[in-house]
Amino acid sequence: MPVVVETISTLQQAIARSKQAPVGLVPTMGALHAGHLRLIDRARAETALVVVSVFVNPLQFDQVSDLNTYPRDLERDVALCATHGVDAVFAPSVQEMYPVPPMCAVDVGAMADHLCGKFRPGHFRGVATVVLKLLNIVQPNIAYFGEKDAQQLAIIRRLVREFNVPISIVGVETVREADGLALSSRNARLGPEERAVAPALQRALRTAADAIAAGASDSGEIRRHAASAIPADGRLRLEYLEIVDPETMQPVATVATEVCVAGAMWVGSTRLIDNVTARPPR
Amino acid sequence: MPVVVETISTLQQAIARSKQAPVGLVPTMGALHAGHLRLIDRARAETALVVVSVFVNPLQFDQVSDLNTYPRDLERDVALCATHGVDAVFAPSVQEMYPVPPMCAVDVGAMADHLCGKFRPGHFRGVATVVLKLLNIVQPNIAYFGEKDAQQLAIIRRLVREFNVPISIVGVETVREADGLALSSRNARLGPEERAVAPALQRALRTAADAIAAGASDSGEIRRHAASAIPADGRLRLEYLEIVDPETMQPVATVATEVCVAGAMWVGSTRLIDNVTARPPR
Repeated sequence: MPVVVETISTLQQAIARSKQAPVGLVPTMGALHAGHLRLIDRARAETALVVVSVFVNPLQFDQVSDLNTYPRDLERDVALCATHGVDAVFAPSVQEMYPVPPMCAVDVGAMADHLCGKFRPGHFRGVATVVLKLLNIVQPNIAYFGEKDAQQLAIIRRLVREFNVPISIVGVETVREADGLALSSRNARLGPEERAVAPALQRALRTAADAIAAGASDSGEIRRHAASAIPADGRLRLEYLEIVDPETMQPVATVATEVCVAGAMWVGSTRLIDNVTARPPR
Repeated sequence: MPVVVETISTLQQAIARSKQAPVGLVPTMGALHAGHLRLIDRARAETALVVVSVFVNPLQFDQVSDLNTYPRDLERDVALCATHGVDAVFAPSVQEMYPVPPMCAVDVGAMADHLCGKFRPGHFRGVATVVLKLLNIVQPNIAYFGEKDAQQLAIIRRLVREFNVPISIVGVETVREADGLALSSRNARLGPEERAVAPALQRALRTAADAIAAGASDSGEIRRHAASAIPADGRLRLEYLEIVDPETMQPVATVATEVCVAGAMWVGSTRLIDNVTARPPR
Protein backbone atom coordinates (compact mmCIF):
# COMPACT_ATOMS: atom_id res chain seq x y z
CA MET A 1 0.00 0.00 0.00
CA PRO A 2 1.23 3.50 -0.73
CA VAL A 3 1.65 5.88 2.14
CA VAL A 4 -1.08 8.51 2.07
CA VAL A 5 0.14 11.92 3.18
CA GLU A 6 -1.85 15.09 3.59
CA THR A 7 0.80 17.66 4.38
CA ILE A 8 3.64 19.07 2.33
CA SER A 9 6.21 18.63 5.09
CA THR A 10 5.29 14.98 5.68
CA LEU A 11 5.52 14.27 1.97
CA GLN A 12 8.89 15.96 1.61
CA GLN A 13 10.23 14.09 4.64
CA ALA A 14 8.97 10.78 3.24
CA ILE A 15 10.60 11.44 -0.14
CA ALA A 16 13.89 12.51 1.47
CA ARG A 17 13.89 9.51 3.82
CA SER A 18 13.27 7.06 0.99
CA LYS A 19 16.51 8.11 -0.74
CA GLN A 20 14.95 6.71 -3.94
CA ALA A 21 15.64 8.45 -7.23
CA PRO A 22 14.58 9.32 -9.80
CA VAL A 23 11.22 10.50 -8.50
CA GLY A 24 8.15 10.40 -10.73
CA LEU A 25 5.04 12.50 -10.16
CA VAL A 26 1.57 11.87 -11.58
CA PRO A 27 -0.62 14.88 -10.73
CA THR A 28 -4.32 14.01 -10.72
CA MET A 29 -7.65 15.27 -9.44
CA GLY A 30 -8.49 11.73 -8.31
CA ALA A 31 -11.41 9.70 -9.69
CA LEU A 32 -8.70 7.58 -11.26
CA HIS A 33 -9.45 5.65 -14.44
CA ALA A 34 -7.38 3.60 -16.86
CA GLY A 35 -5.97 6.80 -18.39
CA HIS A 36 -4.43 7.75 -15.05
CA LEU A 37 -3.26 4.17 -14.55
CA ARG A 38 -1.37 4.35 -17.84
CA LEU A 39 0.44 7.44 -16.50
CA ILE A 40 1.18 5.62 -13.26
CA ASP A 41 2.46 2.52 -15.05
CA ARG A 42 4.75 4.69 -17.17
CA ALA A 43 6.06 6.44 -14.03
CA ARG A 44 6.50 3.06 -12.31
CA ALA A 45 8.54 1.78 -15.26
CA GLU A 46 10.75 4.88 -15.51
CA THR A 47 11.28 6.08 -11.94
CA ALA A 48 12.23 4.61 -8.57
CA LEU A 49 9.75 6.50 -6.41
CA VAL A 50 6.26 7.13 -7.74
CA VAL A 51 4.14 9.87 -6.18
CA VAL A 52 0.51 10.38 -7.22
CA SER A 53 -1.10 13.61 -6.13
CA VAL A 54 -4.86 13.71 -5.69
CA PHE A 55 -6.09 17.28 -5.39
CA VAL A 56 -9.27 18.79 -6.78
CA ASN A 57 -7.94 22.27 -7.35
CA PRO A 58 -10.61 24.93 -6.81
CA LEU A 59 -8.56 27.50 -8.74
CA GLN A 60 -9.06 25.76 -12.05
CA PHE A 61 -12.83 25.37 -11.91
CA ASP A 62 -14.67 28.12 -13.74
CA GLN A 63 -18.03 26.61 -12.72
CA VAL A 64 -18.85 26.07 -9.05
CA SER A 65 -21.30 23.32 -10.02
CA ASP A 66 -18.52 21.42 -11.83
CA LEU A 67 -16.29 21.72 -8.74
CA ASN A 68 -19.05 20.59 -6.42
CA THR A 69 -20.05 17.57 -8.51
CA TYR A 70 -16.50 16.53 -9.42
CA PRO A 71 -16.25 12.84 -8.44
CA ARG A 72 -14.21 12.19 -5.29
CA ASP A 73 -13.33 8.79 -3.81
CA LEU A 74 -9.90 8.81 -2.20
CA GLU A 75 -10.24 5.31 -0.74
CA ARG A 76 -10.84 3.83 -4.19
CA ASP A 77 -8.03 5.95 -5.69
CA VAL A 78 -5.58 4.72 -3.05
CA ALA A 79 -6.61 1.11 -3.67
CA LEU A 80 -5.99 1.56 -7.40
CA CYS A 81 -2.63 3.17 -6.68
CA ALA A 82 -1.76 0.19 -4.48
CA THR A 83 -2.38 -2.29 -7.29
CA HIS A 84 -0.13 -0.24 -9.59
CA GLY A 85 2.83 0.02 -7.23
CA VAL A 86 2.54 3.69 -6.25
CA ASP A 87 4.82 4.60 -3.34
CA ALA A 88 3.03 7.69 -2.01
CA VAL A 89 -0.33 9.36 -2.53
CA PHE A 90 -0.28 13.07 -1.75
CA ALA A 91 -3.81 14.19 -0.90
CA PRO A 92 -3.59 17.66 0.59
CA SER A 93 -6.50 19.79 1.76
CA VAL A 94 -7.33 23.08 0.06
CA GLN A 95 -6.04 24.80 3.21
CA GLU A 96 -2.71 22.98 2.92
CA MET A 97 -2.29 24.02 -0.70
CA TYR A 98 -3.61 27.57 -0.28
CA PRO A 99 -2.89 28.61 3.32
CA VAL A 100 -3.04 32.29 2.38
CA PRO A 101 -5.33 33.99 -0.16
CA PRO A 102 -3.53 33.57 -3.50
CA MET A 103 -2.07 36.81 -4.84
CA CYS A 104 0.39 35.25 -7.31
CA ALA A 105 -0.53 33.08 -10.27
CA VAL A 106 0.98 31.76 -13.46
CA ASP A 107 -0.29 33.81 -16.38
CA VAL A 108 -0.19 31.57 -19.45
CA GLY A 109 -0.95 34.38 -21.86
CA ALA A 110 -2.01 33.53 -25.38
CA MET A 111 -1.58 29.82 -24.66
CA ALA A 112 -5.07 30.01 -23.10
CA ASP A 113 -6.69 32.19 -25.77
CA HIS A 114 -8.17 29.33 -27.78
CA LEU A 115 -9.69 25.88 -27.36
CA CYS A 116 -10.76 25.21 -23.74
CA GLY A 117 -9.07 28.38 -22.55
CA LYS A 118 -11.54 30.46 -24.54
CA PHE A 119 -14.54 28.81 -22.91
CA ARG A 120 -13.16 28.33 -19.41
CA PRO A 121 -11.79 31.71 -18.30
CA GLY A 122 -9.10 31.33 -15.65
CA HIS A 123 -9.00 27.54 -15.99
CA PHE A 124 -5.44 27.23 -17.29
CA ARG A 125 -4.18 29.93 -14.99
CA GLY A 126 -5.44 27.74 -12.14
CA VAL A 127 -3.99 24.59 -13.70
CA ALA A 128 -0.59 26.15 -14.34
CA THR A 129 -0.43 27.60 -10.84
CA VAL A 130 -1.29 24.36 -9.05
CA VAL A 131 0.99 22.30 -11.28
CA LEU A 132 3.90 24.66 -10.59
CA LYS A 133 3.15 24.29 -6.88
CA LEU A 134 3.02 20.49 -7.10
CA LEU A 135 6.27 20.36 -9.10
CA ASN A 136 7.96 22.50 -6.46
CA ILE A 137 6.50 20.52 -3.56
CA VAL A 138 7.40 17.07 -4.90
CA GLN A 139 10.49 18.10 -6.90
CA PRO A 140 10.23 15.05 -9.14
CA ASN A 141 12.68 14.26 -11.91
CA ILE A 142 9.81 13.45 -14.28
CA ALA A 143 6.14 14.46 -14.20
CA TYR A 144 3.53 12.66 -16.29
CA PHE A 145 0.46 14.18 -17.95
CA GLY A 146 -2.17 12.73 -20.27
CA GLU A 147 -2.30 13.77 -23.91
CA LYS A 148 -6.11 13.96 -23.70
CA ASP A 149 -5.73 17.41 -22.18
CA ALA A 150 -3.61 18.65 -25.07
CA GLN A 151 -3.80 22.33 -24.16
CA GLN A 152 -2.94 21.59 -20.53
CA LEU A 153 0.04 19.48 -21.59
CA ALA A 154 1.28 22.15 -24.02
CA ILE A 155 0.93 24.85 -21.34
CA ILE A 156 2.80 22.79 -18.76
CA ARG A 157 5.58 22.01 -21.22
CA ARG A 158 5.80 25.71 -22.04
CA LEU A 159 5.84 26.98 -18.46
CA VAL A 160 8.43 24.41 -17.43
CA ARG A 161 10.58 25.52 -20.35
CA GLU A 162 10.03 29.27 -19.88
CA PHE A 163 10.48 29.19 -16.10
CA ASN A 164 13.45 26.79 -16.32
CA VAL A 165 11.81 24.31 -13.95
CA PRO A 166 14.39 21.50 -13.66
CA ILE A 167 11.89 18.71 -14.39
CA SER A 168 11.13 16.58 -17.45
CA ILE A 169 7.52 16.53 -18.64
CA VAL A 170 6.28 13.36 -20.30
CA GLY A 171 3.00 13.21 -22.21
CA VAL A 172 1.24 9.84 -22.20
CA GLU A 173 -1.14 8.57 -24.86
CA THR A 174 -4.88 8.83 -24.28
CA VAL A 175 -6.65 5.64 -23.25
CA ARG A 176 -9.89 5.01 -25.16
CA GLU A 177 -12.91 2.79 -24.88
CA ALA A 178 -13.44 0.26 -27.67
CA ASP A 179 -15.68 2.75 -29.52
CA GLY A 180 -13.04 5.50 -29.37
CA LEU A 181 -14.35 7.55 -26.44
CA ALA A 182 -11.43 9.02 -24.50
CA LEU A 183 -11.46 8.03 -20.84
CA SER A 184 -12.42 10.86 -18.50
CA SER A 185 -13.56 11.07 -14.93
CA ARG A 186 -16.53 13.02 -16.27
CA ASN A 187 -17.69 10.04 -18.39
CA ALA A 188 -19.21 8.66 -15.19
CA ARG A 189 -21.83 11.41 -15.41
CA LEU A 190 -23.14 10.18 -18.78
CA GLY A 191 -26.46 8.33 -18.89
CA PRO A 192 -26.60 5.20 -21.10
CA GLU A 193 -28.04 7.04 -24.11
CA GLU A 194 -25.56 9.88 -23.70
CA ARG A 195 -22.75 7.36 -23.46
CA ALA A 196 -23.88 5.81 -26.73
CA VAL A 197 -23.53 9.07 -28.69
CA ALA A 198 -20.43 10.42 -26.87
CA PRO A 199 -17.89 8.97 -29.37
CA ALA A 200 -19.16 11.49 -31.95
CA LEU A 201 -16.44 13.95 -30.86
CA GLN A 202 -13.63 11.49 -31.49
CA ARG A 203 -15.15 10.62 -34.88
CA ALA A 204 -15.30 14.29 -35.86
CA LEU A 205 -11.66 14.80 -34.87
CA ARG A 206 -10.63 11.72 -36.82
CA THR A 207 -12.59 13.04 -39.80
CA ALA A 208 -10.47 16.19 -39.68
CA ALA A 209 -7.23 14.23 -39.27
CA ASP A 210 -8.13 11.96 -42.19
CA ALA A 211 -8.85 15.00 -44.38
CA ILE A 212 -5.48 16.51 -43.43
CA ALA A 213 -3.71 13.21 -44.12
CA ALA A 214 -5.43 13.17 -47.52
CA GLY A 215 -4.11 16.64 -48.34
CA ALA A 216 -6.75 19.10 -47.15
CA SER A 217 -5.06 22.23 -45.83
CA ASP A 218 -7.72 24.94 -45.40
CA SER A 219 -8.54 24.87 -41.69
CA GLY A 220 -11.93 26.49 -42.13
CA GLU A 221 -13.02 23.85 -44.64
CA ILE A 222 -11.57 21.01 -42.60
CA ARG A 223 -13.37 22.21 -39.50
CA ARG A 224 -16.72 22.53 -41.25
CA HIS A 225 -16.30 19.09 -42.77
CA ALA A 226 -15.39 17.58 -39.40
CA ALA A 227 -18.20 19.31 -37.52
CA SER A 228 -20.70 17.87 -39.97
CA ALA A 229 -19.66 14.43 -38.71
CA ILE A 230 -21.42 15.22 -35.43
CA PRO A 231 -24.95 13.82 -35.77
CA ALA A 232 -27.91 16.15 -35.42
CA ASP A 233 -28.88 15.08 -31.90
CA GLY A 234 -30.40 17.39 -29.34
CA ARG A 235 -28.12 15.99 -26.66
CA LEU A 236 -24.95 16.93 -28.54
CA ARG A 237 -23.51 20.42 -28.84
CA LEU A 238 -20.06 20.99 -30.31
CA GLU A 239 -18.38 23.76 -28.30
CA TYR A 240 -15.31 24.06 -30.51
CA LEU A 241 -13.30 22.11 -33.03
CA GLU A 242 -10.01 23.86 -33.75
CA ILE A 243 -6.78 23.19 -35.57
CA VAL A 244 -3.80 24.56 -33.65
CA ASP A 245 -0.03 24.53 -33.49
CA PRO A 246 0.88 21.66 -31.14
CA GLU A 247 3.42 23.76 -29.20
CA THR A 248 1.81 27.19 -28.92
CA MET A 249 -1.88 26.24 -29.17
CA GLN A 250 -2.39 29.06 -31.68
CA PRO A 251 -4.84 28.53 -34.57
CA VAL A 252 -3.37 27.38 -37.86
CA ALA A 253 -5.12 28.77 -40.94
CA THR A 254 -3.38 26.56 -43.48
CA VAL A 255 -2.12 23.14 -42.46
CA ALA A 256 1.45 22.60 -43.63
CA THR A 257 3.04 20.70 -40.73
CA GLU A 258 1.89 18.53 -37.84
CA VAL A 259 -1.10 20.05 -36.06
CA CYS A 260 -3.31 19.33 -33.10
CA VAL A 261 -7.00 18.97 -33.87
CA ALA A 262 -8.86 19.53 -30.61
CA GLY A 263 -12.51 19.69 -29.70
CA ALA A 264 -14.97 20.01 -26.86
CA MET A 265 -18.50 18.73 -27.01
CA TRP A 266 -21.36 18.84 -24.56
CA VAL A 267 -23.33 15.64 -24.13
CA GLY A 268 -26.35 16.73 -22.19
CA SER A 269 -24.87 18.55 -19.18
CA THR A 270 -21.46 16.86 -19.45
CA ARG A 271 -18.58 18.49 -21.28
CA LEU A 272 -16.09 16.19 -22.96
CA ILE A 273 -12.80 17.04 -24.65
CA ASP A 274 -10.52 15.16 -26.96
CA ASN A 275 -7.83 15.75 -29.57
CA VAL A 276 -5.83 14.01 -32.25
CA THR A 277 -2.52 14.75 -33.91
CA ALA A 278 -2.76 15.19 -37.66
CA ARG A 279 -0.05 15.29 -40.32
CA PRO A 280 -0.31 16.43 -43.92
CA PRO A 281 0.90 14.02 -46.59
CA ARG A 282 4.66 14.27 -47.35
CA MET B 1 38.60 35.08 -9.54
CA PRO B 2 35.07 33.79 -9.97
CA VAL B 3 34.26 31.75 -13.05
CA VAL B 4 32.15 33.82 -15.44
CA VAL B 5 29.57 31.73 -17.26
CA GLU B 6 27.12 32.80 -19.91
CA THR B 7 25.00 29.73 -20.44
CA ILE B 8 22.56 27.93 -18.18
CA SER B 9 24.00 24.50 -18.90
CA THR B 10 27.58 25.60 -18.15
CA LEU B 11 26.47 27.16 -14.88
CA GLN B 12 24.52 24.10 -13.80
CA GLN B 13 27.46 21.85 -14.65
CA ALA B 14 29.85 24.07 -12.68
CA ILE B 15 27.56 24.05 -9.64
CA ALA B 16 27.07 20.27 -9.82
CA ARG B 17 30.83 19.68 -10.28
CA SER B 18 31.72 21.86 -7.30
CA LYS B 19 29.70 19.62 -4.95
CA GLN B 20 29.59 22.65 -2.60
CA ALA B 21 26.45 23.23 -0.53
CA PRO B 22 24.58 25.18 0.55
CA VAL B 23 24.44 27.38 -2.54
CA GLY B 24 23.76 31.11 -2.21
CA LEU B 25 22.42 33.28 -5.04
CA VAL B 26 22.62 37.06 -5.28
CA PRO B 27 20.54 38.13 -8.30
CA THR B 28 21.61 41.54 -9.63
CA MET B 29 21.40 43.71 -12.71
CA GLY B 30 25.10 44.50 -12.36
CA ALA B 31 26.48 48.00 -11.75
CA LEU B 32 27.40 46.62 -8.36
CA HIS B 33 27.69 49.00 -5.41
CA ALA B 34 28.18 48.59 -1.67
CA GLY B 35 24.53 47.53 -1.29
CA HIS B 36 25.12 44.54 -3.56
CA LEU B 37 28.40 43.81 -1.80
CA ARG B 38 26.58 43.58 1.51
CA LEU B 39 24.31 40.92 -0.07
CA ILE B 40 27.35 39.09 -1.38
CA ASP B 41 29.15 39.23 1.97
CA ARG B 42 26.08 37.83 3.67
CA ALA B 43 25.87 35.02 1.11
CA ARG B 44 29.62 34.37 1.52
CA ALA B 45 29.18 34.09 5.29
CA GLU B 46 26.17 31.78 5.11
CA THR B 47 26.72 29.54 2.08
CA ALA B 48 29.50 27.42 0.62
CA LEU B 49 29.06 28.34 -3.03
CA VAL B 50 28.18 31.93 -3.91
CA VAL B 51 26.67 32.68 -7.32
CA VAL B 52 26.04 36.28 -8.44
CA SER B 53 23.83 36.71 -11.46
CA VAL B 54 24.27 39.83 -13.59
CA PHE B 55 21.38 40.24 -15.99
CA VAL B 56 19.66 43.44 -17.07
CA ASN B 57 16.21 41.97 -17.57
CA PRO B 58 14.35 43.68 -20.42
CA LEU B 59 11.00 42.35 -19.16
CA GLN B 60 11.05 44.54 -16.06
CA PHE B 61 11.78 47.86 -17.74
CA ASP B 62 8.67 49.87 -18.41
CA GLN B 63 10.74 52.63 -20.07
CA VAL B 64 12.98 51.80 -23.02
CA SER B 65 15.15 54.82 -22.17
CA ASP B 66 15.76 53.44 -18.66
CA LEU B 67 16.74 50.07 -20.12
CA ASN B 68 19.04 51.64 -22.68
CA THR B 69 20.81 53.90 -20.17
CA TYR B 70 21.00 51.33 -17.37
CA PRO B 71 24.69 51.22 -16.37
CA ARG B 72 26.57 48.12 -17.56
CA ASP B 73 30.18 47.21 -16.73
CA LEU B 74 30.63 43.46 -16.40
CA GLU B 75 34.41 43.65 -16.09
CA ARG B 76 34.16 45.94 -13.08
CA ASP B 77 31.37 43.81 -11.58
CA VAL B 78 33.47 40.65 -11.91
CA ALA B 79 36.45 42.38 -10.30
CA LEU B 80 34.27 43.43 -7.35
CA CYS B 81 32.91 39.89 -7.08
CA ALA B 82 36.48 38.60 -7.02
CA THR B 83 37.40 40.79 -4.07
CA HIS B 84 34.34 39.51 -2.17
CA GLY B 85 34.95 35.80 -2.71
CA VAL B 86 32.22 35.07 -5.25
CA ASP B 87 32.57 31.62 -6.82
CA ALA B 88 30.61 32.13 -10.02
CA VAL B 89 29.20 35.07 -11.96
CA PHE B 90 26.29 34.12 -14.20
CA ALA B 91 26.00 36.69 -16.98
CA PRO B 92 23.60 35.31 -19.58
CA SER B 93 22.52 37.02 -22.78
CA VAL B 94 18.90 38.01 -23.34
CA GLN B 95 18.75 35.21 -25.93
CA GLU B 96 19.93 32.68 -23.34
CA MET B 97 17.29 33.77 -20.84
CA TYR B 98 14.47 34.20 -23.36
CA PRO B 99 15.16 31.78 -26.23
CA VAL B 100 11.49 31.78 -27.24
CA PRO B 101 9.01 34.67 -27.13
CA PRO B 102 7.67 34.65 -23.55
CA MET B 103 4.07 33.48 -23.30
CA CYS B 104 4.10 32.64 -19.58
CA ALA B 105 4.71 35.11 -16.76
CA VAL B 106 4.26 35.40 -13.02
CA ASP B 107 1.21 37.52 -12.31
CA VAL B 108 1.73 39.13 -8.91
CA GLY B 109 -1.81 40.45 -8.68
CA ALA B 110 -2.60 43.09 -6.10
CA MET B 111 0.98 42.96 -4.80
CA ALA B 112 1.81 45.31 -7.69
CA ASP B 113 -1.22 47.60 -7.38
CA HIS B 114 0.51 50.23 -5.23
CA LEU B 115 3.89 51.90 -4.71
CA CYS B 116 6.24 51.33 -7.66
CA GLY B 117 3.84 48.84 -9.22
CA LYS B 118 1.30 51.58 -9.77
CA PHE B 119 3.77 53.76 -11.66
CA ARG B 120 5.70 51.05 -13.48
CA PRO B 121 3.12 48.84 -15.23
CA GLY B 122 4.45 45.34 -15.83
CA HIS B 123 7.64 45.97 -13.84
CA PHE B 124 7.03 43.46 -11.05
CA ARG B 125 5.59 40.92 -13.45
CA GLY B 126 8.95 41.09 -15.21
CA VAL B 127 10.88 40.99 -11.94
CA ALA B 128 8.93 38.03 -10.58
CA THR B 129 9.26 36.11 -13.84
CA VAL B 130 13.02 36.56 -14.14
CA VAL B 131 13.61 35.85 -10.45
CA LEU B 132 11.61 32.61 -10.68
CA LYS B 133 13.71 31.68 -13.71
CA LEU B 134 16.97 32.48 -11.90
CA LEU B 135 15.90 30.53 -8.82
CA ASN B 136 15.10 27.51 -11.00
CA ILE B 137 18.31 27.84 -13.00
CA VAL B 138 20.65 28.15 -10.02
CA GLN B 139 18.55 26.17 -7.51
CA PRO B 140 20.22 27.86 -4.56
CA ASN B 141 19.41 27.06 -0.95
CA ILE B 142 19.26 30.76 -0.12
CA ALA B 143 18.72 33.81 -2.31
CA TYR B 144 19.55 37.32 -1.12
CA PHE B 145 17.71 40.54 -1.95
CA GLY B 146 18.12 44.11 -0.76
CA GLU B 147 15.51 45.68 1.50
CA LYS B 148 15.75 48.91 -0.49
CA ASP B 149 13.40 47.37 -3.04
CA ALA B 150 10.77 46.63 -0.41
CA GLN B 151 7.99 45.83 -2.83
CA GLN B 152 10.26 43.57 -4.88
CA LEU B 153 11.37 41.71 -1.75
CA ALA B 154 7.78 41.31 -0.51
CA ILE B 155 6.68 40.02 -3.93
CA ILE B 156 9.54 37.53 -4.13
CA ARG B 157 8.84 36.28 -0.60
CA ARG B 158 5.18 35.89 -1.54
CA LEU B 159 5.74 34.08 -4.82
CA VAL B 160 8.27 31.73 -3.24
CA ARG B 161 5.74 30.96 -0.51
CA GLU B 162 2.71 30.67 -2.80
CA PHE B 163 4.50 28.61 -5.45
CA ASN B 164 6.27 26.44 -2.81
CA VAL B 165 9.68 27.21 -4.29
CA PRO B 166 12.08 25.23 -2.06
CA ILE B 167 14.39 28.17 -1.41
CA SER B 168 14.93 30.54 1.54
CA ILE B 169 14.71 34.25 0.79
CA VAL B 170 16.85 36.58 2.90
CA GLY B 171 16.36 40.33 2.93
CA VAL B 172 19.47 42.39 3.59
CA GLU B 173 19.55 45.88 5.11
CA THR B 174 19.92 48.88 2.81
CA VAL B 175 23.36 50.45 2.65
CA ARG B 176 23.29 54.25 2.90
CA GLU B 177 25.62 57.14 2.27
CA ALA B 178 26.58 59.21 5.30
CA ASP B 179 23.73 61.64 4.58
CA GLY B 180 21.14 58.83 4.45
CA LEU B 181 20.83 58.39 0.68
CA ALA B 182 20.19 54.73 -0.12
CA LEU B 183 22.76 53.28 -2.49
CA SER B 184 21.44 52.65 -5.98
CA SER B 185 23.01 52.01 -9.35
CA ARG B 186 20.93 54.95 -10.56
CA ASN B 187 22.66 57.37 -8.13
CA ALA B 188 25.49 57.48 -10.67
CA ARG B 189 23.18 59.49 -12.94
CA LEU B 190 22.82 62.34 -10.41
CA GLY B 191 24.67 65.60 -11.04
CA PRO B 192 26.41 67.19 -8.01
CA GLU B 193 23.50 69.53 -7.21
CA GLU B 194 20.99 66.72 -7.63
CA ARG B 195 23.08 64.51 -5.38
CA ALA B 196 23.03 67.21 -2.70
CA VAL B 197 19.21 67.27 -2.52
CA ALA B 198 18.63 63.53 -3.10
CA PRO B 199 18.51 62.60 0.64
CA ALA B 200 15.19 64.47 0.91
CA LEU B 201 13.29 61.23 0.20
CA GLN B 202 14.92 59.41 3.10
CA ARG B 203 14.24 62.40 5.38
CA ALA B 204 10.56 62.39 4.42
CA LEU B 205 10.27 58.67 5.10
CA ARG B 206 11.99 59.11 8.46
CA THR B 207 9.60 61.95 9.24
CA ALA B 208 6.70 59.54 8.71
CA ALA B 209 8.34 56.81 10.78
CA ASP B 210 9.03 59.25 13.62
CA ALA B 211 5.40 60.40 13.61
CA ILE B 212 4.24 56.78 13.74
CA ALA B 213 6.66 56.01 16.58
CA ALA B 214 5.24 59.05 18.40
CA GLY B 215 1.69 57.72 18.10
CA ALA B 216 0.32 59.15 14.83
CA SER B 217 -1.96 56.60 13.19
CA ASP B 218 -3.92 58.35 10.42
CA SER B 219 -2.04 57.44 7.25
CA GLY B 220 -3.40 60.37 5.27
CA GLU B 221 -2.15 62.86 7.87
CA ILE B 222 1.19 61.10 8.26
CA ARG B 223 1.73 61.11 4.52
CA ARG B 224 0.91 64.82 4.16
CA HIS B 225 3.19 65.64 7.07
CA ALA B 226 6.02 63.56 5.61
CA ALA B 227 5.61 64.94 2.09
CA SER B 228 5.95 68.45 3.46
CA ALA B 229 9.49 67.50 4.52
CA ILE B 230 10.47 67.45 0.84
CA PRO B 231 11.85 70.93 0.10
CA ALA B 232 10.20 73.06 -2.58
CA ASP B 233 12.86 72.50 -5.23
CA GLY B 234 12.16 72.35 -8.95
CA ARG B 235 14.47 69.37 -9.30
CA LEU B 236 12.48 67.25 -6.83
CA ARG B 237 9.15 65.58 -7.50
CA LEU B 238 7.66 63.09 -5.06
CA GLU B 239 6.02 60.31 -7.06
CA TYR B 240 4.46 58.55 -4.09
CA LEU B 241 4.84 58.18 -0.36
CA GLU B 242 2.70 55.34 0.94
CA ILE B 243 2.15 53.40 4.13
CA VAL B 244 1.58 49.72 3.43
CA ASP B 245 1.37 46.32 5.05
CA PRO B 246 4.91 44.90 4.97
CA GLU B 247 3.76 41.49 3.72
CA THR B 248 1.01 42.26 1.22
CA MET B 249 2.04 45.78 0.13
CA GLN B 250 -1.57 46.92 0.53
CA PRO B 251 -2.25 50.45 1.85
CA VAL B 252 -2.89 50.79 5.56
CA ALA B 253 -5.42 53.49 6.48
CA THR B 254 -4.80 53.43 10.22
CA VAL B 255 -1.43 52.38 11.56
CA ALA B 256 -1.80 49.82 14.36
CA THR B 257 1.08 47.42 13.73
CA GLU B 258 4.43 47.47 11.96
CA VAL B 259 4.19 49.08 8.54
CA CYS B 260 6.41 49.81 5.59
CA VAL B 261 6.69 53.48 4.63
CA ALA B 262 7.87 53.59 1.04
CA GLY B 263 8.45 56.38 -1.42
CA ALA B 264 9.69 57.22 -4.89
CA MET B 265 11.05 60.61 -5.82
CA TRP B 266 12.34 62.02 -9.07
CA VAL B 267 15.53 64.06 -8.84
CA GLY B 268 15.73 65.68 -12.25
CA SER B 269 15.42 62.78 -14.68
CA THR B 270 16.48 60.16 -12.14
CA ARG B 271 13.95 58.17 -10.15
CA LEU B 272 14.99 57.08 -6.65
CA ILE B 273 13.18 54.77 -4.25
CA ASP B 274 13.55 54.08 -0.56
CA ASN B 275 11.60 52.77 2.41
CA VAL B 276 11.71 52.47 6.16
CA THR B 277 10.00 50.18 8.63
CA ALA B 278 7.87 52.00 11.20
CA ARG B 279 6.31 50.77 14.43
CA PRO B 280 3.63 52.42 16.53
CA PRO B 281 4.38 52.91 20.22
CA ARG B 282 3.51 49.88 22.39
